[in-house]
Amino acid sequence: MNTLNATTPQGKVTLLSAGPGDLDLLTIRAAKALAAADIVLLDDLANPDIVTLAPHARVIRVGKRGGCKSTPQAFIQRLMQRYARLGLHVVRVKGGDALLFGRAGEEIAALREARIAVDIVNGVSSGFAAAAGLGISLTHRDHCQGVTFVTAHRQDHGEPDWRALAATGMTLAIYMGMSRIAGIAASLSEALPASTPAAVVQHAGSPGERRLVTTLDRLAADAGAAGLESPAVIFVGGAIGEAMQRAAHGERGFAHAA
Amino acid sequence: MNTLNATTPQGKVTLLSAGPGDLDLLTIRAAKALAAADIVLLDDLANPDIVTLAPHARVIRVGKRGGCKSTPQAFIQRLMQRYARLGLHVVRVKGGDALLFGRAGEEIAALREARIAVDIVNGVSSGFAAAAGLGISLTHRDHCQGVTFVTAHRQDHGEPDWRALAATGMTLAIYMGMSRIAGIAASLSEALPASTPAAVVQHAGSPGERRLVTTLDRLAADAGAAGLESPAVIFVGGAIGEAMQRAAHGERGFAHAA
Repeated sequence: MNTLNATTPQGKVTLLSAGPGDLDLLTIRAAKALAAADIVLLDDLANPDIVTLAPHARVIRVGKRGGCKSTPQAFIQRLMQRYARLGLHVVRVKGGDALLFGRAGEEIAALREARIAVDIVNGVSSGFAAAAGLGISLTHRDHCQGVTFVTAHRQDHGEPDWRALAATGMTLAIYMGMSRIAGIAASLSEALPASTPAAVVQHAGSPGERRLVTTLDRLAADAGAAGLESPAVIFVGGAIGEAMQRAAHGERGFAHAA
Repeated sequence: MNTLNATTPQGKVTLLSAGPGDLDLLTIRAAKALAAADIVLLDDLANPDIVTLAPHARVIRVGKRGGCKSTPQAFIQRLMQRYARLGLHVVRVKGGDALLFGRAGEEIAALREARIAVDIVNGVSSGFAAAAGLGISLTHRDHCQGVTFVTAHRQDHGEPDWRALAATGMTLAIYMGMSRIAGIAASLSEALPASTPAAVVQHAGSPGERRLVTTLDRLAADAGAAGLESPAVIFVGGAIGEAMQRAAHGERGFAHAA
């Protein structure tokens, strides 16, 4: 019995993961949902070319444009509900995987509250694409038992407990940390050796992908010297050391700090 | 300059992420790689129907069969190298995302050592599909700043430091933990409240998906009573509580312990 969905048999919202950038990294399910979409709500973190996969949809851009603030979250939620109530299939496109740092939890809760059916379509989070770019596994049994994806974004969350994270021995994949990379590296250095492997991947999974492999003590300086900026994933941990040989061989796409 | 690949211009190995099960959750890039494959090496964790996407390929099964041991890792690596050296496109299929708990690090290192070109194609890890099944986000700004994917598999890794993991406040997504769920829950209970939300999703992202939402103190007993077994993802953390309302409404696919 699915009573929550009973009042709106026709309209629904799909929270769709657009992946890290390249449209080839969309799932087949995502491509099918876009092909069937009536309305596409697109934010800045997704590749704008994704609309070519939604030929029948009206596209509404809800990200930051020209220095303006983002469309307020409450307005996005009202838009989704309004169109779903008209019986339309609304596809809300989110960068990466919608279930990681995408505020999907709030959107799902609001849609359930409004008794609107919600589908979720997974995708590739940029941390996975970044590891593929580095040519490494996020975990490696010689180094760690897992990986932590953590946001350094202060507005959404308090400051993570970097010391506690370092104590777990997990690979750290830090999102939205470029504006505070020096502080993050300093905090992690209180608990990890200076020689701990570290990396930055900008525009992971996109044609403009750029990579840097270094060590924790040089992370902030090297990223600055290489001109790496947001959007980027910062990695710290022993498993990242597997990338060092590749970078040392001068393979394409690896930045080298001055 | 890509000197590592220069000696085998024609053959290559693609480490391909098959996602959690449903073929719709493959990426478009994965489908293209399969369509172009000459050889497919398939392990047990991937949906066997995936071979329908590789019509030109010779399929070699390298997983456990009929109670036998897995094909030894060294033999799989020799197979990949042998066929790549013949100039063939070898696709090594791995469940979930190849870069999480898939021993990809070792395979990449061995292929590089052998100077064979390696492509990596990302996919959806089962933890993401499991969260989609629960209808929740892995992170939620009311609850946590990130998520840790950790394996409880003892053969590959030592025992994770559950107390240290609990201290981070991250959502925990525990893979390969069903055989030791009671011990894991007991260890986490030393650092987390008994009422901490917890869940189990078996066969995430597959038609046979089954879900349980409970609390940490009841996790092992409820999972046992519901008959949930491997393969499954265990979740622990505040963000998982967002699933409780859904389960309480009796939506389909949620198991209820006796």
